[in-house]
Amino acid sequence: MARKALDSQPFSRLVGARITSFGDGRAVLEVDIREELRQQNGFLHGGVLAYAADNSLTFAAGTTLGPAVLTAGFSVQYIRPATGLTLVARASVAHSGRRQAVVRCDLFTVGADGNETLCAVAQGTVLAAQPS
Amino acid sequence: MARKALDSQPFSRLVGARITSFGDGRAVLEVDIREELRQQNGFLHGGVLAYAADNSLTFAAGTTLGPAVLTAGFSVQYIRPATGLTLVARASVAHSGRRQAVVRCDLFTVGADGNETLCAVAQGTVLAAQPS
Amino acid sequence: MARKALDSQPFSRLVGARITSFGDGRAVLEVDIREELRQQNGFLHGGVLAYAADNSLTFAAGTTLGPAVLTAGFSVQYIRPATGLTLVARASVAHSGRRQAVVRCDLFTVGADGNETLCAVAQGTVLAAQPS
Amino acid sequence: MARKALDSQPFSRLVGARITSFGDGRAVLEVDIREELRQQNGFLHGGVLAYAADNSLTFAAGTTLGPAVLTAGFSVQYIRPATGLTLVARASVAHSGRRQAVVRCDLFTVGADGNETLCAVAQGTVLAAQPS
Repeated sequence: MARKALDSQPFSRLVGARITSFGDGRAVLEVDIREELRQQNGFLHGGVLAYAADNSLTFAAGTTLGPAVLTAGFSVQYIRPATGLTLVARASVAHSGRRQAVVRCDLFTVGADGNETLCAVAQGTVLAAQPS
Repeated sequence: MARKALDSQPFSRLVGARITSFGDGRAVLEVDIREELRQQNGFLHGGVLAYAADNSLTFAAGTTLGPAVLTAGFSVQYIRPATGLTLVARASVAHSGRRQAVVRCDLFTVGADGNETLCAVAQGTVLAAQPS
Repeated sequence: MARKALDSQPFSRLVGARITSFGDGRAVLEVDIREELRQQNGFLHGGVLAYAADNSLTFAAGTTLGPAVLTAGFSVQYIRPATGLTLVARASVAHSGRRQAVVRCDLFTVGADGNETLCAVAQGTVLAAQPS
Repeated sequence: MARKALDSQPFSRLVGARITSFGDGRAVLEVDIREELRQQNGFLHGGVLAYAADNSLTFAAGTTLGPAVLTAGFSVQYIRPATGLTLVARASVAHSGRRQAVVRCDLFTVGADGNETLCAVAQGTVLAAQPS
C-alpha cells in the first residue's frame, strides 16, 4: 500500500525513490544515487536529502495517523557531504496523538562496502487531514 | 555566474530550476510546475518546495559569503497545497557575518492569472566553507 | 486582553516580559535586559531569546486563531550575541487558516542610543486548539 | 566543570537548572517544575522547554567541541502539555566535526510516580567558536 502510494507521486518516480519498510510508526525510503541527483561538486544534492526527509517523515506519520495527512513542516540539519551508492532515510514517530505526529528522520548513505554514514538529521510535525 | 552554477547541478537540471535574480543578499529561483513534480493529489510535491528553499537559501548566502558555502540546515513550514504554473522561491539574507549567513525564503506559486500565492516559508543557516 | 493573558503566565512575569502591541496578525513582546537574564559572558541568554520567540509567535497567532492555541513548534537561528537595554520580539503571521497559522519573528535588541540590532530570527506553526 | 559553567549563567540560576550528566557527546539538564515556570493553564511554559533544549544542546556540543561554542540555531517540536515534578532534557551529539556539531534533545517530564513522559524534541547546530 505504501509502495503504491509512493508510486502515485510523479516526483518520487522522477527522483527514483522506493519505500523499503513501512509500519508501526516507521518508514524507510531509499534512493539509488545517480548522476542526475548530484550537485556541482559531485555530492548528492541537499534537495534530494530534503525531499527524502519530507517524504519519509510523512510516510512514517501515515502509519499512525492514517493515509490522509498534511506535513506542517520540518527542519533538517546537514552533517556532511553525501556520497555513496544509496540514500537511506529512516523515519520514526516520536509521538502520535489524535491530531498530529512528531517524527524524526536519520539520513544515511550506504557505500560500496555496505557501511552506512549519517549525512543529515530531520524532525517535523505532520497533521491528520480533517474532513472538509 | 549564478546561472552557470545552477546549471552545473545535475539535480537542478532534473527539477528544471532557473535563477532569475541574484545579488545583494538576494536570490530568486523559479521552477515551472509540470506533471513530473507533483505528488499523488496533483499538488506540487513538498520535496520540490524543500529543494527550492534549500537551493535559494544557499544562493542568497553566496551573494554575501562568496561561492564556497555549506548549508548547515534549514526549516520549512508549509502553508497550503501548491498549485499554479510556476514556483518562485525568493530568498533574502537576514544577516551575514564572516562565518555564516542567516537567510529567509518565501515560496510562492504563480497562477495563470499572474497572481502569487504564498505556499511555504523557510529559514536557514549557511556557513562559509573554510580552506581545508 | 493580551496583557492580561501575559500576566497570567507566571514564567513571563519571572522573565519580566510585556506585550506592547497586539492585533491584526502581529504581536510585539518586550523584555528589559537585566543581570538575571544573562549567560556566562554577559550576553542575553539564548534561552530568553527562545522564550521570546515562542511567546510572541503564539500571541501573534492568537490574533487570528483566537485565544485557544497550541504552538506546534518553532525554529530559531541566532545571528549575534545579544546586548543592549531591551529585547524586542516582533512576530507577524505569514498565513493563517482555519486550523493553523504560520508565524515569523524578528528578535532585536535596543541599545542606549535607541538603535535596534537584529539578534535572531524565528518561525513556527501554531494550531487552533480543538474543542475536546 | 559543566556545573560551574551552568552556575555562571544568571538565567540558568533564575530558571533553577542543573546539569546532572555531562560527557561523551551527552548532557542532561534538569529543572524542578515550580509555580514560577508555568503558563496560564498550569503547564510548564514552552519557553522553559525551549530554554532547556537550547542549553542542553549547547552543553552536549561542548563535550566534543570544547567550551567555546556558539549555538547557530535549533528547532523544537512540542508534543504535549508538560506537567510533573521535574523537566529532564537529554541532549546527544548526532555528529561532531571540526567546525560544528549537530545535536538532538529529548525533553521529558518526570511525575510523582517516577514515570517519564516525552513532551518535546529538538535538534540544532552548534559551532566551534573561532579565535578572533
